[in-house]
Amino acid sequence: MKSLTVQIPLIESSSYDIKIKAGLLKDLPKIIEDKLGVCSKMIVTDSNVKNSGHIDSLSLCGEVFVIDPPGECNKYMHTVVEILEQMEQKTMGRDSAIIAVGGGTVGDMAGFAASIFKRGVPIIHVPTTTVSQADSSIGGKTGVDSSISKNAYGAFWHPAAVFIDVETLKTLDQRQFNAGLVESIKHALISDLTYFEYLEDNIDTILNRDNATLEEVALFNSKVKSSIVSIDPKEKNQRRILNYGHTIGHAIESASNFELLHGEAVAIGIMGASIIEIELGIGNIQRLERVKKLLNKLSIPLKIPANITKEQIYSLLSRDKKSVNGWPKFALIEDIAKVHIDADNQWAHRVDPSVAGIAIDQLMG
Amino acid sequence: MKSLTVQIPLIESSSYDIKIKAGLLKDLPKIIEDKLGVCSKMIVTDSNVKNSGHIDSLSLCGEVFVIDPPGECNKYMHTVVEILEQMEQKTMGRDSAIIAVGGGTVGDMAGFAASIFKRGVPIIHVPTTTVSQADSSIGGKTGVDSSISKNAYGAFWHPAAVFIDVETLKTLDQRQFNAGLVESIKHALISDLTYFEYLEDNIDTILNRDNATLEEVALFNSKVKSSIVSIDPKEKNQRRILNYGHTIGHAIESASNFELLHGEAVAIGIMGASIIEIELGIGNIQRLERVKKLLNKLSIPLKIPANITKEQIYSLLSRDKKSVNGWPKFALIEDIAKVHIDADNQWAHRVDPSVAGIAIDQLMG
Repeated sequence: MKSLTVQIPLIESSSYDIKIKAGLLKDLPKIIEDKLGVCSKMIVTDSNVKNSGHIDSLSLCGEVFVIDPPGECNKYMHTVVEILEQMEQKTMGRDSAIIAVGGGTVGDMAGFAASIFKRGVPIIHVPTTTVSQADSSIGGKTGVDSSISKNAYGAFWHPAAVFIDVETLKTLDQRQFNAGLVESIKHALISDLTYFEYLEDNIDTILNRDNATLEEVALFNSKVKSSIVSIDPKEKNQRRILNYGHTIGHAIESASNFELLHGEAVAIGIMGASIIEIELGIGNIQRLERVKKLLNKLSIPLKIPANITKEQIYSLLSRDKKSVNGWPKFALIEDIAKVHIDADNQWAHRVDPSVAGIAIDQLMG
Repeated sequence: MKSLTVQIPLIESSSYDIKIKAGLLKDLPKIIEDKLGVCSKMIVTDSNVKNSGHIDSLSLCGEVFVIDPPGECNKYMHTVVEILEQMEQKTMGRDSAIIAVGGGTVGDMAGFAASIFKRGVPIIHVPTTTVSQADSSIGGKTGVDSSISKNAYGAFWHPAAVFIDVETLKTLDQRQFNAGLVESIKHALISDLTYFEYLEDNIDTILNRDNATLEEVALFNSKVKSSIVSIDPKEKNQRRILNYGHTIGHAIESASNFELLHGEAVAIGIMGASIIEIELGIGNIQRLERVKKLLNKLSIPLKIPANITKEQIYSLLSRDKKSVNGWPKFALIEDIAKVHIDADNQWAHRVDPSVAGIAIDQLMG
């Protein structure tokens, strides 16, 4: 047998900047041109964001693709293909770039489109929601849903830059705004007690959408998220802690047919994780109550909707992207800002289905 | 303005093996299990390959997805989505893998599917055609066509291994077999005079599909291709020389509505490059005639089909994936195995459209 080994060289380390400022949006055309130079730009957004006026200044610097209707109902490959085909129609080449202006679904789809257009062009994220500013715009995860599961198809594709204008949060409806704050609570829970106390102390000011406080929250979130993804960008181990509350959360979100917002489902998932921690002897009822008190400030129901069955949730858990042999691993904490790490330095854990079942039973509405 | 920098750590160098042997196919189930361990496997192939019996042994180790009809007519995102959806239906997770058994289009689509399933699973290539054994299975380029251009959407996704069984070439029809050899001639032209002479001396034995000679050719090809992609995996510079003959070639292939096989179009593209080199004063008629003599052995018409217009070719060139400001750069050589590299160490060059036009005029059928 003839044999040959092909070397794949190392890829140098790199970096990108996150800029945070109320009112940043109007300065972006110049900032982005300074960053990318002259190139074709496709601005991807949705009808909500467009109608809120958030792309008025940006639309001057490129073509615009509007996802309509917005949200998870269009988060499929066919939308990504529509973005790509429009770029082809406009004769955009390898030297083009995509700018995502919107929430998590816009960013996930635009980022995925950027990762596969001509085998990869730069993506700039301009997140306009609490969930995308806190979480999805940072870290390079992109993707779309399959007919069966969330984010089933996608790529890791780091942004060239992230620009956060907290002023854009003013146009969110209260339900969207509040649900997105669940990711902020999750960030505090997994890594920063000072941040958790800040959220407890300032939750009313946050809910009143005070710019200075929102900038502070955005900075806290960016620090937590970036420090974790920098250690483990491809989610081999440590990054899995960002899925805290998400394993049960994703299943509930899917089972609700996306009637529940992502953050609302994750809030229930965080309660589920807290119950599992108690069952495993690494949590306690006092911490659970403290977390619940903060989540309650967001006016999110913390019970699984009555029309969802336990069997549905089990079935969806078995198909989880992170499943190994048909069952996912769970990220857990031992205390606020203290990740549960086992003797093998694993940051996610096998939890017996019966233990998960106890949590699901307690959460049934 | 608040600001934060996110670090993206370096990615370590890695490698993969290419194994070459006549009759290797029947040993692959065991070799692949040793390589990947126990995991769900999706074997992607096409109806030609299946009907030739090449997946008889492999089909025992996983699910099988058959692309039908085979070839470029199905090389679109919808086929990739069908592969992915079938993997979802079979509850495959992040720990699954894809095995591509077939020619370039199978490998391109299966590799692309692997790159985006659950944000990336391993791909093993088992190329069964002259073009895929010589070229497309090595180097990590994957993708599908858009409604407008070839390989418009895709990813760089290196294989976990490549297994070449030259015995599979026995079932190719003569036209497919011969067209694929154009990539071998291209490899020799851009980097190995010994290889070019080997091809000149052994072309009849190759056309008779002698196993030992085909193994030798596969090894030559693997060496040329892997040495170039190892230097420049993402095609920033040196890898562009692999596009030798492909710039005009791709345009002709598209303009023919894929009536021409890839290798047939590239053969005309290589003649085009030779004419451009003469026009630029870096080529000569003797070399052109020597190359033409070898290409003629493959019984490939070296003229642009009469139903294709010059305007069509210009339009397609302007949309080339590698176009910058609407015009592609051309890979050129100064002699056999001597790449044309400019003072700035660039391996691809701006060629004035009028010079490209001279080549196109001379190639018109």
